[in-house]
Amino acid sequence: MTDMAEMPSEPSGWLSERELQHVRRELPLLYINAVPVRVDAAGEVSEVGLLLRADDDAISRALVAGRVLFHETVRDALIRNLEKDLGSVAMPRIPISPTPFAVAEYFPTEGYGAFHDSRQHAVALAFVVAVDGSCEPSQNALDIVWLSPEEAASDDVARDMTGGQHSLLRRALAHCGVLR
Amino acid sequence: MTDMAEMPSEPSGWLSERELQHVRRELPLLYINAVPVRVDAAGEVSEVGLLLRADDDAISRALVAGRVLFHETVRDALIRNLEKDLGSVAMPRIPISPTPFAVAEYFPTEGYGAFHDSRQHAVALAFVVAVDGSCEPSQNALDIVWLSPEEAASDDVARDMTGGQHSLLRRALAHCGVLR
Amino acid sequence: MTDMAEMPSEPSGWLSERELQHVRRELPLLYINAVPVRVDAAGEVSEVGLLLRADDDAISRALVAGRVLFHETVRDALIRNLEKDLGSVAMPRIPISPTPFAVAEYFPTEGYGAFHDSRQHAVALAFVVAVDGSCEPSQNALDIVWLSPEEAASDDVARDMTGGQHSLLRRALAHCGVLR
Amino acid sequence: MTDMAEMPSEPSGWLSERELQHVRRELPLLYINAVPVRVDAAGEVSEVGLLLRADDDAISRALVAGRVLFHETVRDALIRNLEKDLGSVAMPRIPISPTPFAVAEYFPTEGYGAFHDSRQHAVALAFVVAVDGSCEPSQNALDIVWLSPEEAASDDVARDMTGGQHSLLRRALAHCGVLR
Repeated sequence: MTDMAEMPSEPSGWLSERELQHVRRELPLLYINAVPVRVDAAGEVSEVGLLLRADDDAISRALVAGRVLFHETVRDALIRNLEKDLGSVAMPRIPISPTPFAVAEYFPTEGYGAFHDSRQHAVALAFVVAVDGSCEPSQNALDIVWLSPEEAASDDVARDMTGGQHSLLRRALAHCGVLR
Repeated sequence: MTDMAEMPSEPSGWLSERELQHVRRELPLLYINAVPVRVDAAGEVSEVGLLLRADDDAISRALVAGRVLFHETVRDALIRNLEKDLGSVAMPRIPISPTPFAVAEYFPTEGYGAFHDSRQHAVALAFVVAVDGSCEPSQNALDIVWLSPEEAASDDVARDMTGGQHSLLRRALAHCGVLR
Repeated sequence: MTDMAEMPSEPSGWLSERELQHVRRELPLLYINAVPVRVDAAGEVSEVGLLLRADDDAISRALVAGRVLFHETVRDALIRNLEKDLGSVAMPRIPISPTPFAVAEYFPTEGYGAFHDSRQHAVALAFVVAVDGSCEPSQNALDIVWLSPEEAASDDVARDMTGGQHSLLRRALAHCGVLR
Repeated sequence: MTDMAEMPSEPSGWLSERELQHVRRELPLLYINAVPVRVDAAGEVSEVGLLLRADDDAISRALVAGRVLFHETVRDALIRNLEKDLGSVAMPRIPISPTPFAVAEYFPTEGYGAFHDSRQHAVALAFVVAVDGSCEPSQNALDIVWLSPEEAASDDVARDMTGGQHSLLRRALAHCGVLR
């Protein structure tokens, strides 16, 4: 079984990859996580988008994820990482409130808390983002699949997600009032 | 000085106006309040919309407000009251999360809490709503004015609002991260 | 199977029971719901309290619930209903923020939305409340049982709850970061 | 005028001070901010605690602040930094929900966003924390002063705070429903 190590890291323009490797074991790194959703005219979530990824020899489903860079606002990091994972015509509606619906703390030690990333201690600010446009899988993903809130909350989907991200997905559904 | 009594009550299809008058002194009535905003591409609030109203002999600025009717969802009440106050082409983006950013408790006793409505005990679920379309004042409003977040938070605007609604407006700005 | 009709209504000092019966079919009534929890020293939820109730011929588990009365603040309604359901020495820590973590809309029409109350349209502001003291079942409850977050989220517990309250309980666990 | 550079950094057991200096200009650092409050029996904020600090030649008021260390949970960082700034008998009630009420983004470039820290790009998860015990100023603070919510929101207090922290304080008051 794979883990959150597969959360892709974009090339840092500020730290060399070697320096970043070093820092990953010294400091918590700031990430964003995003749950893309389709909403109906009344604002209610009708579908949830998950990235389909091929990591090593396993297929997994994942949330949008990426680092917040030096001197980058959380909003800009959210926009940049949504574009990286969903393409340039997804037309995300960036949340009006800059406060995340949850904070996911990924620890390198498995079983320490709800979230795991073998590579690093990452703390992700998590947002639900409605997307109106067309989503295209990036080089990091094979596809984007859209599920009903019920399917997204299911144990079947939980088994396909790694690093504890399904727990974050369920919290997102709860936040949107569509977790039963 | 006028008070929240001017918060317009739509005709109830379920209770006669006389029955409603009676109930207003017996039960807290459920309302919604909405703060219409314009947002930029990054989701940040650039302008806040306030209704300009002529009540009795005074001009005041007000938030969108209205009752939740029997068997109506909060979302539907939000949509209906936004349409009532902003017109049919305002194109509001109804929030994904059904949880209000604040709850405003209007009491008929002046000075009892932050919010006042001489007519009734009203409890309003308050939402910030981005509007993309064109807003037209309804019969209840003379005009809709758009202010920067700084103007909206100012003491000048506070003096033009009644029933404590400026406190709710400031909380909305805080929620959006644009209160300095 | 029973439904949310069993959510107990305290005697209204303001409306006669007959008037209240009438109003229940004309207006949404404002309620509070509370999820009592035990927390550890780090503030993390360790246990969730559920009321054990005997309604008609079935045993069910329920959240703390009750009406907001005329001229009563939501905070005071929360305190009063916690005392009604948990006794006078529960020592609840009333939340600092007056904003509910969720709003539960109970409709009299079964299947219309997530929550059902055959008696009325009730809109409940929902809070998670840490209790430090000793909880004693009131006349409305046979007992109070304390469950781990995992047990509380389980399908077994869901089957013992009525009116959709288990959905609200799961949302409470998500809000507290303990829903897996 | 001083700036957020005065936000004290605890000795890192993981990175040398020299390495940390380097990293400060390469990565956003994760911080916590806390607003200590006294609450009444109904959970309403009655007083707000501010640290009185002597930085260089100026006296300023500040919020509780500190880094999240490698492999430390946000909860533990909150507890540790509260103890560092308020002493060991403050008896803080750590929030049940691990989601901050706001995220403060401090940039080294003055005027870029609401928050400034000349030393680094710091992203602080902000919490309101009720304290029941006795607060003692640490070596970093001359004193702790308790203000009413009205005083805390005032322009006078704003002038005594640096790095934009007064904006965060106002958001905290809004979150608690005590910003007028």
